[in-house]
Amino acid sequence: MAKSTFEYVKTFELDDSLLPNTWIVVRIDGKCFHKFADDHNFTKPNDERALKLMNYAAFHVVKEFNELLVAYGQSDEYSFIFKKNCQLYNRRQSKLLTTINSKFTASYVYYWDMFFKGERLKYPPTFDGRIVLYPTEENIIDYLKWRQADVHINNLYNTTFWTLILKGNLSPTQAEKRLCGTVSADKNEILFKEFNMNYNKEPEIFKRGTVLLRKSVSKENSGKPSAVIVDIHDDMLKEKFWHKHSYLFKNSK
Amino acid sequence: MAKSTFEYVKTFELDDSLLPNTWIVVRIDGKCFHKFADDHNFTKPNDERALKLMNYAAFHVVKEFNELLVAYGQSDEYSFIFKKNCQLYNRRQSKLLTTINSKFTASYVYYWDMFFKGERLKYPPTFDGRIVLYPTEENIIDYLKWRQADVHINNLYNTTFWTLILKGNLSPTQAEKRLCGTVSADKNEILFKEFNMNYNKEPEIFKRGTVLLRKSVSKENSGKPSAVIVDIHDDMLKEKFWHKHSYLFKNSK
Amino acid sequence: MAKSTFEYVKTFELDDSLLPNTWIVVRIDGKCFHKFADDHNFTKPNDERALKLMNYAAFHVVKEFNELLVAYGQSDEYSFIFKKNCQLYNRRQSKLLTTINSKFTASYVYYWDMFFKGERLKYPPTFDGRIVLYPTEENIIDYLKWRQADVHINNLYNTTFWTLILKGNLSPTQAEKRLCGTVSADKNEILFKEFNMNYNKEPEIFKRGTVLLRKSVSKENSGKPSAVIVDIHDDMLKEKFWHKHSYLFKNSK
Amino acid sequence: MAKSTFEYVKTFELDDSLLPNTWIVVRIDGKCFHKFADDHNFTKPNDERALKLMNYAAFHVVKEFNELLVAYGQSDEYSFIFKKNCQLYNRRQSKLLTTINSKFTASYVYYWDMFFKGERLKYPPTFDGRIVLYPTEENIIDYLKWRQADVHINNLYNTTFWTLILKGNLSPTQAEKRLCGTVSADKNEILFKEFNMNYNKEPEIFKRGTVLLRKSVSKENSGKPSAVIVDIHDDMLKEKFWHKHSYLFKNSK
Repeated sequence: MAKSTFEYVKTFELDDSLLPNTWIVVRIDGKCFHKFADDHNFTKPNDERALKLMNYAAFHVVKEFNELLVAYGQSDEYSFIFKKNCQLYNRRQSKLLTTINSKFTASYVYYWDMFFKGERLKYPPTFDGRIVLYPTEENIIDYLKWRQADVHINNLYNTTFWTLILKGNLSPTQAEKRLCGTVSADKNEILFKEFNMNYNKEPEIFKRGTVLLRKSVSKENSGKPSAVIVDIHDDMLKEKFWHKHSYLFKNSK
Repeated sequence: MAKSTFEYVKTFELDDSLLPNTWIVVRIDGKCFHKFADDHNFTKPNDERALKLMNYAAFHVVKEFNELLVAYGQSDEYSFIFKKNCQLYNRRQSKLLTTINSKFTASYVYYWDMFFKGERLKYPPTFDGRIVLYPTEENIIDYLKWRQADVHINNLYNTTFWTLILKGNLSPTQAEKRLCGTVSADKNEILFKEFNMNYNKEPEIFKRGTVLLRKSVSKENSGKPSAVIVDIHDDMLKEKFWHKHSYLFKNSK
Repeated sequence: MAKSTFEYVKTFELDDSLLPNTWIVVRIDGKCFHKFADDHNFTKPNDERALKLMNYAAFHVVKEFNELLVAYGQSDEYSFIFKKNCQLYNRRQSKLLTTINSKFTASYVYYWDMFFKGERLKYPPTFDGRIVLYPTEENIIDYLKWRQADVHINNLYNTTFWTLILKGNLSPTQAEKRLCGTVSADKNEILFKEFNMNYNKEPEIFKRGTVLLRKSVSKENSGKPSAVIVDIHDDMLKEKFWHKHSYLFKNSK
Repeated sequence: MAKSTFEYVKTFELDDSLLPNTWIVVRIDGKCFHKFADDHNFTKPNDERALKLMNYAAFHVVKEFNELLVAYGQSDEYSFIFKKNCQLYNRRQSKLLTTINSKFTASYVYYWDMFFKGERLKYPPTFDGRIVLYPTEENIIDYLKWRQADVHINNLYNTTFWTLILKGNLSPTQAEKRLCGTVSADKNEILFKEFNMNYNKEPEIFKRGTVLLRKSVSKENSGKPSAVIVDIHDDMLKEKFWHKHSYLFKNSK
């Protein structure tokens, strides 16, 4: 029963430390969430309950790890960004990746009932994840812009697509055909002219996703600064956002 | 709003494919499960509900991925072993690791109530994970033996430790002191002479952990072979086990 | 001048140890050797001096590292194979790769004059290299077969191509056109019917490349076993070769 | 002879692309150069011929690769720094590493006679190498400072050590003992008081190593800018150096 005879197998565990002084992005994605959404009667094109559950699960992840600087979520994906100088778990890739991924998944299942009242969770959902490193402030900002540009493009499409189906009585195939080759302006016009919808007035959470930020606030009575996590739906593609939140990447060297 | 301006950030995602023709072990571990066990009143030294929940969550993982050959669990850890020639997700490390880890975590939370009747899950648990590759049949078998030798050593210690406390009325410090420097034979003797316990008669699931295997069985009516997943608690340190299950690693080239 | 202020940069050096218990292949390749061969008047299609210099440089590499089991060279490339259990430099990838690569390059330049009498080395040549791991005996044997099948295909083509030019007075373009779409049998026939050449009688070193092996021989006077490095040009695609040299991969566990 | 049967072994070659937008340092080091220096009668503590040969070999490396920004050499090591946005060989690690390493080694052997007149190269030398990535301008500058601080510390020690032996008639053991526990000021004082040597007047190439830089100069007749590679021995630990050469890392984004 000598454990030591077999312990050599431990030498097959290779070091996977991440390059120091780089932003660490952990992005997780719902697996087969198209089917999952159907199975759980998600409202089309956006289900506010589902987005808020995503945000709430992400909030619990950010709350647990002080070295998380910002998180950004949209649809069934969430990106968590660690500070450049993060030393959590000695920057071991697998450890960082799985801890975030598991904590998020567990929270999603655990808090389901809080958001989906009356809609039973039929089976456990799965999220996959990956880690990407970014060396500069410019790169990490472009990363966030990339994800937010993605939600804009997808949401405008989905909103028009589902409006054509739900209000315009088109079949999915007809709606797809109708939108084929259209640009943003065309879709805005369809919504406005045919359905009297102003896309700009759609909820920000749908159009822009959710940014979770640590913010320093003064406590009312004591005046002492205290960190809180806030969720905002601002436009990260505007430079204004980065001026306002310049402390984010500057401070965290 | 040109998505393409930012899309260059995608080039920072590096390929992480695993070496072909090697056994892939995904091992997951409960994070801070000492505290988690206390917070949820786990029976000491072993909580059958907790072990069975682990097994049930692992069963759902194995069921979902045909390329999983065998899984082995003990305490708050589980190892999942993919076939050598597994091509799932093109053997991308992060994808394999997070999918297994997330599916297990979600199942653990989802099926909690089925095993812990009357014990509310107070907060979402977290599991971390890692991937280790093994090139030969001998290595992968030694890996499983290593994990099972580990459970033996720990369980004999824990069983004696908690018996000294619960039945012998020692404090944890006294029990620790008593066991300091003892070998297996000493612990067996303490249990037998002082508490009339035969360690060998302890439940196999405590002493050996649980092996989940795919097995081919004949259907009663049709006679057609069908694959089922069975859980056994056999001694993998004995060669007999490997003769009996030699098909496992031989067939899977 | 405090060195310690800057020493943190050492933490950016990441571990690159290779998976244990796998065959390590270091393959090096001449960079721009088409031009290098022209600049140094290599005989077409094969230059025996060049091949022998490659072999001699490789011989010095094998001689230096006892953990090298076998080497195989053809054209301007050489593969060096370390034993599975090689622990040289703790299996650090960069160290193994560059040491072999540099030793080979230095030897190639250093011994040039020994083989290229009267042909001055006009400029320093460059070789690049890579490491590939193979988990099983079957894989590593197939690797060597792959390289030798490659030399066969290329050499039959090149021999026919250059015969058409040098003896058949075709231009390179005409020769290329003539060979377009031909299979092995066609090329053998061109050589035989048009130029009275039997390809099978071409030198083995051209047709099969060179295998460098460590071999155990008995010393004449003492009878003590002693290891020598031999160069052979046998057909590794035949199973006979592997029966004869079965000790190679079997012993080296 | 079907090559395709074995071609599957190519799938074992894994991608090793380096993270984009990071400075790539290739550092090479002489292997067993203590012995090599003895075998070739290197002057102690510094051999100008050897340093100039290192510089000349490095010059040929820098000349060949436009994407090399700067190189720094001291003793038997040389660091080559690629631009952040370098795309050479698609940033494949092994390719970059071995090409630089091999080109340097070949040049060292090839140009030996130009510097070591009358001293025959007795055997081919070997250099090993590694790649390290640095994400920011600050990190890469600190890297160069680290290497130069290293040469300062070593050279002051070696100069005093060999002066005690060569001029002070101490044995190596006595010299080592004498220097044990001394700081820089002590060594400067030994040189000055006992041997009338002002360390500051030692040749810059010994004290600071050599920096190879690409510089833009105007051609005399045409006035057109042209790039040349210059070798300087300035103090990189002074901020003045970085102001003067600020174009180096700024321009190369």
